[in-house]
Amino acid sequence: MSIMQIPSIEVEQRISLLQSRLQGDGIDGALFVYPVDIFYFTGTRQNSSLWVPASGAPMLLVRRSFSRAQTESLIADTRPFPSGRELPSLFSAGIRRIGFTFDVMPVQYYTYYAGLLAGREFIDISRMNRELRSVKSPWERERLRVSGKRLAGVFAEVPQVIERGMRETDLAAGVEYRLKKAGSEGNVRARSFGQEMIGLTTSGYRAAVQGGFDGPVTGKGISPASPYGPSLEPIQEGEPIMLDYAGIWDGYLADMSRIFVVGDMSPALKKAFAVACDIQDRLADNLRPGALCEDLYLTAVGMAKRAGLAGNFMGCSGEQVRFVGHGLGLELDEFPVLAKGFTEGLKEGQAIALEPKFMFPGQGVVGIENTYLVTAAGGEKLTILADDIVYA
Amino acid sequence: MSIMQIPSIEVEQRISLLQSRLQGDGIDGALFVYPVDIFYFTGTRQNSSLWVPASGAPMLLVRRSFSRAQTESLIADTRPFPSGRELPSLFSAGIRRIGFTFDVMPVQYYTYYAGLLAGREFIDISRMNRELRSVKSPWERERLRVSGKRLAGVFAEVPQVIERGMRETDLAAGVEYRLKKAGSEGNVRARSFGQEMIGLTTSGYRAAVQGGFDGPVTGKGISPASPYGPSLEPIQEGEPIMLDYAGIWDGYLADMSRIFVVGDMSPALKKAFAVACDIQDRLADNLRPGALCEDLYLTAVGMAKRAGLAGNFMGCSGEQVRFVGHGLGLELDEFPVLAKGFTEGLKEGQAIALEPKFMFPGQGVVGIENTYLVTAAGGEKLTILADDIVYA
Repeated sequence: MSIMQIPSIEVEQRISLLQSRLQGDGIDGALFVYPVDIFYFTGTRQNSSLWVPASGAPMLLVRRSFSRAQTESLIADTRPFPSGRELPSLFSAGIRRIGFTFDVMPVQYYTYYAGLLAGREFIDISRMNRELRSVKSPWERERLRVSGKRLAGVFAEVPQVIERGMRETDLAAGVEYRLKKAGSEGNVRARSFGQEMIGLTTSGYRAAVQGGFDGPVTGKGISPASPYGPSLEPIQEGEPIMLDYAGIWDGYLADMSRIFVVGDMSPALKKAFAVACDIQDRLADNLRPGALCEDLYLTAVGMAKRAGLAGNFMGCSGEQVRFVGHGLGLELDEFPVLAKGFTEGLKEGQAIALEPKFMFPGQGVVGIENTYLVTAAGGEKLTILADDIVYA
Repeated sequence: MSIMQIPSIEVEQRISLLQSRLQGDGIDGALFVYPVDIFYFTGTRQNSSLWVPASGAPMLLVRRSFSRAQTESLIADTRPFPSGRELPSLFSAGIRRIGFTFDVMPVQYYTYYAGLLAGREFIDISRMNRELRSVKSPWERERLRVSGKRLAGVFAEVPQVIERGMRETDLAAGVEYRLKKAGSEGNVRARSFGQEMIGLTTSGYRAAVQGGFDGPVTGKGISPASPYGPSLEPIQEGEPIMLDYAGIWDGYLADMSRIFVVGDMSPALKKAFAVACDIQDRLADNLRPGALCEDLYLTAVGMAKRAGLAGNFMGCSGEQVRFVGHGLGLELDEFPVLAKGFTEGLKEGQAIALEPKFMFPGQGVVGIENTYLVTAAGGEKLTILADDIVYA
């Protein structure tokens, strides 16, 4: 299980693409403070701030650990974080318009920098940043292929973990144990404010309990303090068990879901599962450059409707989520989103998790999820494992 | 393993204390958006915003899931999130000064609210919020006692998990498996920006690798993308193994560390371990109302210095952290902090993890950590287990 150091050329290309965008928008430079953003552009995620001027060499200012950042950073100018008095002198008078990722930056950080860099204009480059990240380089695609294969390998072992009458949390413990042993790095990063995620092990009516997670399924959870994922209740025979996990290697996430059941499942749930697979396959065929995100979502909604399952698609009871797939890479919620209002065309090299799912209150959730790359020949499936319901 | 619903009276008292502070500072109300803050004041952590006027009834505005928030929220006025057009009408013209927790609020959220509530003054109440949370009610202390006992129970099982020659990540997998089976909720919440934490399993020289985590020990980790916690390397005989884990029940964290070793450890490391225990015991004796945080830190530094270990205390190589204990509760990094510059006196009912640790580059880390309550009789230890090095 080798650790991949990011090649220098990767970071150079990423910075160069960012600089083109900054120049195009008339922004003099971008100042990043969010660890995942910094990792993407430097190869290290030590506690630091990254300054990328619209042209010229970037500069990494490290709070902690400087010694570690020195060994990991691919930015030539990596230095200890300056004092508040020194910091302004690093920004020339010609730098007037500075970009920040306001989607994740706390107000206190903004206030700190706005105070030191008084008189400048600060611009939200959250969207630009996410657009840049959404297209994966050939090197990144290879990382995602590795993550997809390894995650699928862990899912293939799940039948060995399932025992009749076990609690949801015991199954989760067994699955996460195997994920960790396989080297998955663990912290599932989501960019959206307030989202927490470890992985979903949920079954029966508990899977159909509504929740605040920004996905079709939240799970019942253990307590109101952690209202998602597995509960302490036992899994009953005939209940669909949904496992939805991300696996992370070298920072890159693959995401997949499968349905397991002890005993047999009702014909209605099996039929809905088949519809979910049909939707996935139809969309996967169309994960090609130029396909419109919104069209793919509407195709999925149309297929659910024709199957008589519109009210169960991606949630229920008027609390459905309005997407059927999401970009992923270093974070679980990258661009693009297959949702209404996303009118952009797909681009070669984007990574997308398709997750058509149906929710039946009191009974459970069925559906499927795989991670794909957008290619000219349609979606390349990375989570290589049969989609079928697994009878354990 | 029963789930504790927060009693109504708890939430009423918390809101009442907040309102007193708001009135004292001439603030007309507080608007919370951070899930942990909302959970503390309402009993639910569904995706929502909470308005607490300086006097009168609070109002919880729920984005998702409203149905779930209705079953969990202890706020009488719990309603669906209004449209951007409706929202301003919920705030009367007399409301001029509005408090936000700027330590965690993203700039995009601030911009959204500042746009809708134009003409008002927005005030950072991060410090007030953390001060309120730092003193635990008798009900909360009982939750912390339960978490401390359960976490200690998992630590007591660790010798069954350790095997000669196992990789750090395999030990971590085994420990986290038992934590999950014991019902620990999993997401270790830290308030500080960019901090990620699952739990530390680290050993030998790897434990003494510097890192960006805001604690004395970071661990080597698996890759530069996740540079903390266990690595994929095998644990060698004679290397101190440090386990540092939080356990979470009903949202409340206990935090502890113990040292394990396969075979024997060098006399120098054993001596440093004994000094760490002496420091802990001295400070624990002084976890009494009125003791000054800074004094406790300086006492610890003085004891380390007299033992000839000043350069190894709480890190090394000029990258030491400048505290010896931290508050905890719903988050791992609550107030108070036992550090220089924290001149406040302790208060009855604060919860504090003491963690004196020594780092020896190339060799490893030794030290101890337990969670205590501040009482008139000195620290009440919650993580009830012997402090000794465990020879596995």
